[in-house]
Amino acid sequence: MPKLETYSRALTYSYAPGLFPTLEALRAAPERVQRVLVHTGLVRNENSLRLEDLCTRHGIRIENADHLLRKISGKENCYAAAVFSKYRCTPDPGACHVVLHDPSDMGNLGTILRTCLGFGIRDVIVIEPCADLFDPRVVRASMGSLFSMRPAFYDSFDAYQSQYPDHSIVPFMLDGSRTLEESVGTVSLPWSLVFGNEGSGLPAEFQGIGTPTRIVHSHEIDSLNLAAAVSIALYAFSVGRTC
Amino acid sequence: MPKLETYSRALTYSYAPGLFPTLEALRAAPERVQRVLVHTGLVRNENSLRLEDLCTRHGIRIENADHLLRKISGKENCYAAAVFSKYRCTPDPGACHVVLHDPSDMGNLGTILRTCLGFGIRDVIVIEPCADLFDPRVVRASMGSLFSMRPAFYDSFDAYQSQYPDHSIVPFMLDGSRTLEESVGTVSLPWSLVFGNEGSGLPAEFQGIGTPTRIVHSHEIDSLNLAAAVSIALYAFSVGRTC
Repeated sequence: MPKLETYSRALTYSYAPGLFPTLEALRAAPERVQRVLVHTGLVRNENSLRLEDLCTRHGIRIENADHLLRKISGKENCYAAAVFSKYRCTPDPGACHVVLHDPSDMGNLGTILRTCLGFGIRDVIVIEPCADLFDPRVVRASMGSLFSMRPAFYDSFDAYQSQYPDHSIVPFMLDGSRTLEESVGTVSLPWSLVFGNEGSGLPAEFQGIGTPTRIVHSHEIDSLNLAAAVSIALYAFSVGRTC
Repeated sequence: MPKLETYSRALTYSYAPGLFPTLEALRAAPERVQRVLVHTGLVRNENSLRLEDLCTRHGIRIENADHLLRKISGKENCYAAAVFSKYRCTPDPGACHVVLHDPSDMGNLGTILRTCLGFGIRDVIVIEPCADLFDPRVVRASMGSLFSMRPAFYDSFDAYQSQYPDHSIVPFMLDGSRTLEESVGTVSLPWSLVFGNEGSGLPAEFQGIGTPTRIVHSHEIDSLNLAAAVSIALYAFSVGRTC
């Protein structure tokens, strides 16, 4: 087996640091797990036995790697990590999508993945350039939700939209022409909710695409946090309708 | 003036690191700002001129502190910070409240403060023990929203509730008896939305208090991120009603 390296975006594999994300990788996507790293200080309990059991069942090698675990996680108390192959999927044309246009914050990305899965959205499309969806910090912040999702990557929004012409596009913009409540009542299935960068939002040309939508908030803040906006939008679009 | 120390919870003052949070402190709560630290590399532009103007107007001293700025922020590119006096307020009995029971994540806390302000909630009540609301990381994550809020601190939920007997209590729990939509339609003003710790949620005894409420999500995630749950709850309670 090749020697494992400190994570960088160029690698074809990444790490899911933490016992819980490792178990999620083994449960939801064992075919992507190359091997599992454990700390010699890992206590034998229900979770570590489950980890051993899943590795045995799927023929996945477990190895001690105290030093590498510390390097990957930046923490002393990281007791396990899955080494997994990166992947990209083709979005389901019949399902609703969440599209992230140039997101930049790793913690936000992880939280967004977890929220998407919580509202039944598996197809998360990332328009590049963007933060690295496979960075171990994102995987950790997602609590392993990444392994249940179908992440897809496009160079431009046009490239995505041309392949999914039947999706109702809902760009979220501070000056969107409709409120979230208005959009929920009028947008047809399947939809794609589109969110911009944390600092700069979506480019102005999205005013001309689909149903530009705003989440009404007080003028005392410039904008909602990106993960907060995605949470609110997914909740509003999920209540009373299924996709 | 006393020598400034690296931040610790025991200090009576804290730091708002970053130009934007510093401007927010000077705009919303100049009476709490003791002095302003700037980096010698701070470029003269609209924002830095506004900072100078606000300090002059309020008689606040500006001093160069490159080394301290690096220590406070952990970053090389932190160009300003407000040194501010910590404070605690008495919640407004006529207003709606958000109560955080033992929150532990600094980033979540900052995001929650910003979301609260976005939905017009100024009274954020923290039940201790909890993460330090005045930690510079929280202030930064809140984008300075903290300075527009009325933070309050109680040793127990009972101590809070006994002072606000007219508030409708809405504890958010994974096994709450009502859905969020049901609660929004029945809970009377003013309300207090109560959220538990990121890992452990609210203690079971909250099942017997007010209107225990759940945000419906798929079984593929254990729970929503705390800041995501607060965002969704505030949105749902804000749409169609004012407080």
